[in-house]
Amino acid sequence: MSSIVLIGSGNVATHIGTALTAAGHKIVQVYNRTDSGKELSLKLQTDFINDLENVDKNADFIIVSLKDDIVQETLNKITSVTGILLHTSGSLTADILKDSAQNYGVIYPVQTLNKIVPIDFNSVPLCIEGNNKIAEEKIKTLANSISKKVYRVSSSDRLVLHLAAVFACNFTNHLYSISEEILSNRGLSFNILKPLIKETANKVQEFHPNEVQTGPAVRGDLKVMNKHMELLKNSDSLSEIYKLLSSSIQKMKEKDE
Amino acid sequence: MSSIVLIGSGNVATHIGTALTAAGHKIVQVYNRTDSGKELSLKLQTDFINDLENVDKNADFIIVSLKDDIVQETLNKITSVTGILLHTSGSLTADILKDSAQNYGVIYPVQTLNKIVPIDFNSVPLCIEGNNKIAEEKIKTLANSISKKVYRVSSSDRLVLHLAAVFACNFTNHLYSISEEILSNRGLSFNILKPLIKETANKVQEFHPNEVQTGPAVRGDLKVMNKHMELLKNSDSLSEIYKLLSSSIQKMKEKDE
Repeated sequence: MSSIVLIGSGNVATHIGTALTAAGHKIVQVYNRTDSGKELSLKLQTDFINDLENVDKNADFIIVSLKDDIVQETLNKITSVTGILLHTSGSLTADILKDSAQNYGVIYPVQTLNKIVPIDFNSVPLCIEGNNKIAEEKIKTLANSISKKVYRVSSSDRLVLHLAAVFACNFTNHLYSISEEILSNRGLSFNILKPLIKETANKVQEFHPNEVQTGPAVRGDLKVMNKHMELLKNSDSLSEIYKLLSSSIQKMKEKDE
Repeated sequence: MSSIVLIGSGNVATHIGTALTAAGHKIVQVYNRTDSGKELSLKLQTDFINDLENVDKNADFIIVSLKDDIVQETLNKITSVTGILLHTSGSLTADILKDSAQNYGVIYPVQTLNKIVPIDFNSVPLCIEGNNKIAEEKIKTLANSISKKVYRVSSSDRLVLHLAAVFACNFTNHLYSISEEILSNRGLSFNILKPLIKETANKVQEFHPNEVQTGPAVRGDLKVMNKHMELLKNSDSLSEIYKLLSSSIQKMKEKDE
């Protein structure tokens, strides 16, 4: 059982804090610049602080879980940490923590987390890294206590993983948005597509995605593609996306053949 | 209970034939040009034919479930159907059937179907259409007997739906392929991303996708986007997809604000 300070109270901090508490660890403080952190401190039955001066530097772990662009300025105000200092970002290196602590690392959950959407944290992959063996071992033990899927990933690999996640999650979700827009412009319900969306994601849990690629582009069905392009002729942006992704599908197929 | 001829024995014919049989209908014939249809006829315990001359034109329904580009030439050889003639395509109009039957229509399953992947057909959305009220009512009854999700969709709307499905399914699956490629080029396992892929699809079952958009593009996080672009600098094609989809996300966000 470890004592832990949470710096931040957003989506990631909320889910990690909840999972750590459920695993028997003690969150000793929740920090937020504004009062918005009070809710999480109440939920985790711990102290709320809004001044970084008051951070308990002797806690076993201090977990900085903030938006990437304010992590550095926040770290500038946290020095001489005696425990292990962690951040949770996919795109920041571990060594941005080096001026604030001797032992530091990363615990990056590869999942889209939202406060209001409950999740089984045990199945959230955690990518961990430590700046030395002892720190990394402790981070690993902490990560194993809340998830069954813990991976050791270096900072440079983590950025690649983050990029891949942008394609698989952020861009994919945007394609869902586009399809909802296409349907609603025509008065059609997005509900009709929901089982298809679910099954498309389910299928790649077992199969390689390029093995189960379907649709007009991979079949080389120009007739259907032309009908689709005709429907998109009033949107340059959608036409361009349609052409680019279709040609990328065809290129990948040629490469595989 | 209806008597039904299946023209075709591919992924869609197999799943529809299996669902119809399970619902108590009688598949009276399975047609395929080649012997590849024998397997399905055995599975459905019915006659196999490989000559369109032998099609039982008195069956209640004849369902043409073939690749789009051979539907027309096949229909040219089927005339004077007395039952209801159907096709299962998302992108073909209903009236391509008009020279072959007086009563005709469409039953289009909005799902990615693969012979080897079992599916609960009851939850597959079926888009139906008939060329007159009586035919449409009979098609609706047939569809309701195998699925709980039956929608009346016109031919022109069906093409729009098919286009939306290309974005939500085919293009999405290709983004999964790209992310697997990005990871494997670095020796990283695609398994790390699978829970994220599943959750991204799950989230839009309840929420509008543009409400739950995450990632650097929607946050306007240029620092992270530049790091990603740096990683993609050796692939023009991936750089272009990254830029185009990121800018599309930003445009949609501006529109919503």
